[in-house]
Amino acid sequence: MTPNQPPRTMAEKILSARSGKFVSAGDLAVVEVDQVMIVDSIAQSVIKVLADLEATPKFPERVSFVIDHVAPASTVSVAEAQKEAREYASAHGCRLFDVGRGICHQVLMEEGLARPGWIVLGSDSHSTTYGAVGAFGTGMGATDIALAAASGKTWLKVPESVKVTFAGDLRPGVSAKDAALEMIRVLGADGATYMSVEIHAGDRFTRGERMTLANLCVEAGAKCGLAVPGGEVLSDYGYDFPSWVYPDEGATYLREVTIDLSALQPRMSAPSEVDNVHDVSALRGLKVDQVFIGTCTNGRLEDLHAAADVLQGQRVAPHTRLLVIPASSVVMEQAMADGTLLTLMQAGAILGTPGCGPCMGRHQGVLAPGEVCVSTSNRNFIGRMGAAESKVYLASPAVAAATAVLGHIGLPEDLKVTVAS
Amino acid sequence: MTPNQPPRTMAEKILSARSGKFVSAGDLAVVEVDQVMIVDSIAQSVIKVLADLEATPKFPERVSFVIDHVAPASTVSVAEAQKEAREYASAHGCRLFDVGRGICHQVLMEEGLARPGWIVLGSDSHSTTYGAVGAFGTGMGATDIALAAASGKTWLKVPESVKVTFAGDLRPGVSAKDAALEMIRVLGADGATYMSVEIHAGDRFTRGERMTLANLCVEAGAKCGLAVPGGEVLSDYGYDFPSWVYPDEGATYLREVTIDLSALQPRMSAPSEVDNVHDVSALRGLKVDQVFIGTCTNGRLEDLHAAADVLQGQRVAPHTRLLVIPASSVVMEQAMADGTLLTLMQAGAILGTPGCGPCMGRHQGVLAPGEVCVSTSNRNFIGRMGAAESKVYLASPAVAAATAVLGHIGLPEDLKVTVAS
Repeated sequence: MTPNQPPRTMAEKILSARSGKFVSAGDLAVVEVDQVMIVDSIAQSVIKVLADLEATPKFPERVSFVIDHVAPASTVSVAEAQKEAREYASAHGCRLFDVGRGICHQVLMEEGLARPGWIVLGSDSHSTTYGAVGAFGTGMGATDIALAAASGKTWLKVPESVKVTFAGDLRPGVSAKDAALEMIRVLGADGATYMSVEIHAGDRFTRGERMTLANLCVEAGAKCGLAVPGGEVLSDYGYDFPSWVYPDEGATYLREVTIDLSALQPRMSAPSEVDNVHDVSALRGLKVDQVFIGTCTNGRLEDLHAAADVLQGQRVAPHTRLLVIPASSVVMEQAMADGTLLTLMQAGAILGTPGCGPCMGRHQGVLAPGEVCVSTSNRNFIGRMGAAESKVYLASPAVAAATAVLGHIGLPEDLKVTVAS
Repeated sequence: MTPNQPPRTMAEKILSARSGKFVSAGDLAVVEVDQVMIVDSIAQSVIKVLADLEATPKFPERVSFVIDHVAPASTVSVAEAQKEAREYASAHGCRLFDVGRGICHQVLMEEGLARPGWIVLGSDSHSTTYGAVGAFGTGMGATDIALAAASGKTWLKVPESVKVTFAGDLRPGVSAKDAALEMIRVLGADGATYMSVEIHAGDRFTRGERMTLANLCVEAGAKCGLAVPGGEVLSDYGYDFPSWVYPDEGATYLREVTIDLSALQPRMSAPSEVDNVHDVSALRGLKVDQVFIGTCTNGRLEDLHAAADVLQGQRVAPHTRLLVIPASSVVMEQAMADGTLLTLMQAGAILGTPGCGPCMGRHQGVLAPGEVCVSTSNRNFIGRMGAAESKVYLASPAVAAATAVLGHIGLPEDLKVTVAS
């Protein structure tokens, strides 16, 4: 903060720095873009816009194609789109993360392609995830993405900010996903539309857990979700967190909410809005056909560990399918090397290729009419994972794992009761 | 062989035993059916025929539903069909092997649901696989399958037999798959139409390798492929091989061929017929986009071991995708426990859910126009794995693995040269 400048939020500071002038909420900013991320399902549209513009990526090393949404390809037309993305990346020197490397957000984070203070634009709505490390990450459509690739810049209206403070400590058995779902309930599904959700949690939450929190911010309509790091968590980041990225004391927030983690029980988002959040105990007993553990929200090593802790020595209920899809090949290798995947398989889990899996109902676990799924993913809209008459409940990996064993919605503690009886 | 009865082939002996009367080639036999296997992609049709007949399975314990062809479900209609199969199996007391358990033929073999002298009917053409242990296995359409389920019987014209004798020993680096492809070349794609291919190999070939041989017999048009066991291989079977199942000395064969294994080099079936078989060395150098190791032909533990032997310490070529899909959850667990899958992943392999995978081009690795795939599967017809303008070459797991590293068709020995240079 220099003299004569009012204190600013994290979003304002990043957009000021990257536009080279002082901007605050409501201003338009033209900013340098540090990374443009393009997924398989939108690649053809982006390439077409670029061709129509007779443009090519200005900084190819800042453009990443990730083949994750329907990978491996499920149809000839999907395969054609992926081939086109692959060939375009190769011809223009862009990065390519091909089939099986994993989910775009997880991969970019693993590869250090989202860093504090960066602007990262993704052709996927959950690009808010990059805010976990203080990158202004946001999702855009094909035209905006293509223009950003061609020019190396984009324009943004500087968002207002809502400050979410996490206080207290999570009880055992309650996770960052529960905190994230509670945050969306408190904010409301349209409670942060075009805002920056600035997450103040001190040194609570690991880098991975902050990804879960930042990821979910878009479910309140947020433009981005920016986690302010406390001291200890930074050792996880693998790179510096520059002082200029931190929000100023006294910055202006449109709204401030505090969530007391110590009061939180395991939470679940019931159909068909993410902010329809209840205690799991209130939904206990509903028969479940499919459980899905994975996605950019909860497909990381710590999520698989949480599931394995519950599934160790247990067995998935006969009428329930448990799909486990690691978020990336790195996660899958680690979980294989440390025995986690074997524990999951021995419990009856069905493993899938790293990628988005059935999250958006396009392959690998599409739901039939009438089916109920408990998922660690991020959306439970009508028809999200398949038939309009199917239902999706969102939960943490531990709750999902317990539900798979019980065959109905429940908690790990219910499982212990079952085993003892 | 009783007095006054001419010596009989293995097919004649099995069909005589299971029909309760002496039959020989050309006769019609009505036989008891020991197992009816129904895959997800045909389950709805079978269930409809049963409903039209107002019939239910006469012996539910002899009916197995296997959800393997498009598993996990890739569309709502696929999910609906699978749900219907699941509910039908549950309502009628049939066996159900759900998503992720594996490929029908592999699963039935693992579960002891195909045994020497049994009649096993499957709604999948590669049901000849059961002949690996001397079961008369054959594929049928929905109506015949439904009638067999309803009545516990089927009728068959007793097939003529062709005797295939394997002599000599395979050289190092040459596999049962190479022998199987050579067998199809010698017989021709329509060279054994409606015949029983009776495989005489002494104690050569493991149980798994015999599955590869029996599996491929249908690619010569065969009704079944029956492997005559030598002494040592029987310890692999896990159950007795009754003396009445062996063919009689002096039985009548329409044709007899001998394949000298010691003369065999690694083989490859080029597009677009399985009998278009060449030495791999003659096809060396063709650029390959995708390699697929898996299927009922070559997705077993020994196949994954053969691939891992080649891939250990290597890395898949940047422009090539290597998909590895274990044939069953049992195979996947074993290959995970013994470190094989980690070796494959570290080389860049993409793992998929146990099942048929992209073999018939319906999901999980469909080919785009112009793409070339080397596959350990069993069919390379036009459009088999996707676009009509894609090409499929069939090979052994070792050749497939070497090709993945090279990025073009080649042999493990080429790889060693590459590494040394």
